[in-house]
Amino acid sequence: MLDNPSLTLVPGFRAAAVHARVKASSPPEKLDVAVVASDTHAVAAGVFTTNRVKAAPVSYDQTILARNTAGIRAVVINSGNANAVTGAQGLADAHTTAEVAAAALGVEADSILVMSTGVIGQMLPLDRLLPGVTAAVNALDPAADAGHRVARAIMTTDTFPKEAAARVTVAGRTVTLAGVAKGAGLSAPHMATLLSVIVTDVAIRPAALRAALEDAAGRSFNCVTVDGDMSTNDTLLVLANGRAGNPVIDDPDSPGYTEFLDGLRQVSAALARMIARDGEGATKFVTIRVTGAPSWDVARQVGLAVGNSSLVKTALHGEDANWGRVLCAVGYSGAEVDPTRLALWFDEVQLVRDGAPTDYQEADAHATLTKPEVLIRIDLGQGDAEAEVWTCDLSYDYVRINADYRT
Amino acid sequence: MLDNPSLTLVPGFRAAAVHARVKASSPPEKLDVAVVASDTHAVAAGVFTTNRVKAAPVSYDQTILARNTAGIRAVVINSGNANAVTGAQGLADAHTTAEVAAAALGVEADSILVMSTGVIGQMLPLDRLLPGVTAAVNALDPAADAGHRVARAIMTTDTFPKEAAARVTVAGRTVTLAGVAKGAGLSAPHMATLLSVIVTDVAIRPAALRAALEDAAGRSFNCVTVDGDMSTNDTLLVLANGRAGNPVIDDPDSPGYTEFLDGLRQVSAALARMIARDGEGATKFVTIRVTGAPSWDVARQVGLAVGNSSLVKTALHGEDANWGRVLCAVGYSGAEVDPTRLALWFDEVQLVRDGAPTDYQEADAHATLTKPEVLIRIDLGQGDAEAEVWTCDLSYDYVRINADYRT
Repeated sequence: MLDNPSLTLVPGFRAAAVHARVKASSPPEKLDVAVVASDTHAVAAGVFTTNRVKAAPVSYDQTILARNTAGIRAVVINSGNANAVTGAQGLADAHTTAEVAAAALGVEADSILVMSTGVIGQMLPLDRLLPGVTAAVNALDPAADAGHRVARAIMTTDTFPKEAAARVTVAGRTVTLAGVAKGAGLSAPHMATLLSVIVTDVAIRPAALRAALEDAAGRSFNCVTVDGDMSTNDTLLVLANGRAGNPVIDDPDSPGYTEFLDGLRQVSAALARMIARDGEGATKFVTIRVTGAPSWDVARQVGLAVGNSSLVKTALHGEDANWGRVLCAVGYSGAEVDPTRLALWFDEVQLVRDGAPTDYQEADAHATLTKPEVLIRIDLGQGDAEAEVWTCDLSYDYVRINADYRT
Repeated sequence: MLDNPSLTLVPGFRAAAVHARVKASSPPEKLDVAVVASDTHAVAAGVFTTNRVKAAPVSYDQTILARNTAGIRAVVINSGNANAVTGAQGLADAHTTAEVAAAALGVEADSILVMSTGVIGQMLPLDRLLPGVTAAVNALDPAADAGHRVARAIMTTDTFPKEAAARVTVAGRTVTLAGVAKGAGLSAPHMATLLSVIVTDVAIRPAALRAALEDAAGRSFNCVTVDGDMSTNDTLLVLANGRAGNPVIDDPDSPGYTEFLDGLRQVSAALARMIARDGEGATKFVTIRVTGAPSWDVARQVGLAVGNSSLVKTALHGEDANWGRVLCAVGYSGAEVDPTRLALWFDEVQLVRDGAPTDYQEADAHATLTKPEVLIRIDLGQGDAEAEVWTCDLSYDYVRINADYRT
């Protein structure tokens, strides 16, 4: 992983963000329109929400990615308005946004992708958004700060910007990967809007890039939010411009694919952990490690059930070692667990062995929860597979933030 | 529905509850051991949690109901300790509890069912529990107050006792049904422990009683909590002593089955609505009515997705008409909804038509949420079926209660 990560660490990419007042009440310092541009056509792949109520930019990007063969030149992102549940007008507005960006860049509209996050059910304020898009295009810059500004522009209730970057060697060439993400709303992972853009200079074909993105997303973002149960807007995009000059990666069996995938997993996992750390109202970062599973899928399924439990997360917030709630979530996870084989630790303190409480000391169990980082380890006693899930506690502030989001 | 409902309205049933200090820190006025007894052997049926981590009393009752053919004489219920994740010792303790009750009643141990609710992972304090069981048996009383005391004894974080009763005419005879329930923890329906005992004097065979209970539970308790996703302890029991003298109901085609089922649905639904009304920290009672569905199952599935959404429930707490979150939950419910056909109302205010916002006034929408009872209606535009789901808002107090449950 690289220090001082920024999208613009990747050769051939420029970035910019401006304050366009997408949300009328936003303060002047709130950046809310960002553009990430590739100097040349880039291969692109996306992972999108599976919600049947899809935001307009999701439908728009899916259409573009399905028909675009020439490559992508830019991604336009706005915060402050999700352009979701906005019907045909919303789709037209996504298209208009792409056209304005394309005109400013001097490229074809089909080479532009769009992302939106914010409140649902309100039309995009095009009168303010479109001048912002043009201004951002005109401000595109390869400096590190431009990437940092993008990371800030896509924030909604996030409390800190999320950036990560890595370098790996692919078939003898140095490949750089850098990404930004926004998250929040973790206690309702069904509806946490998650946006992420990762750029890289690897040379790769679309199908191989798609395979790598799906693998990396499954082990990172989908270990924070529940895959198959996403918000109206969730979108992960990766753009690869080929500047690294490695032999083009054709498919997962090509030389260098594994090394590139490793870099993509690193960046994705780093961004995903930041999202958990910054869950709305979070005061603790919680890692749930499930071991002894018959498969990685089962391990993740169990971890997500525990990580999504409001009762587990309120207990963690209260620093109450109420491990019964953890086992209860394991029990309803849908996995075929054998209760008599379960073991459970909070950090190094073993609380359950063979499905029954150990003679641990309450004070020791409590002490593990007083720290800002908590590790819950569950062993299913059924195999060798394991997975990690990241989450946070559920606090008063979660309720405060979400009781009053629109005002 | 009957006024001043009590279990003891049903001829042939007596009740009692005592303070046994199951939870060492409980105040002297907290009743925590209850017995509901039938003067004669009663036909019984149960619906139990499907959690793979089952509490000992759940496994115990399932075994008894599978092998008992003579009938049930009593149900022993304790609050303050769930006897869950307590291994072989927990199962032995459930058995011992039944034996002590049976000895005090002068009946066989196999005719006793047990229920527990409270903290998970601690052994039952038999030294205090068992004298309480004997004392409760010795205090059995047919007075209305005895039934009220049972309703109070089974409460944990519930804020009020839950009782309901109804009379129906079954093949010309008057049949009485009465029930008690405890709930709470609604925002995590996966883990809300729900206990309910319903008694009736109908004459019915076990298979028919089981069919009626499953039907009624599906339209009541399972419209509050998610079926298939219950806590370690959830248990609904119904006991029927046959005193009403109706021709025995053999199966769902027998005369009177429909009328009895109607009574059972009435009592179950009344108790289920009370559970929603008393969700932990609840300040609003929320009805989600899904219409225009292709089937009742789909309508309930959509309703439960909305009713379980933390983001919907925090918005309701904040009286924020953030209806986008409702549609988002509809979208990830798993139902095959067509977003362009969705309509949505808060009370009488229509917010969405054909999947797009109407030109409603924000003040009107807000006004619907300032009341203690909120109605959300969703029309899927796909058919004639409908279902109702009941829930509550998600408040600061939910977090407070659950961050500190064990102390």
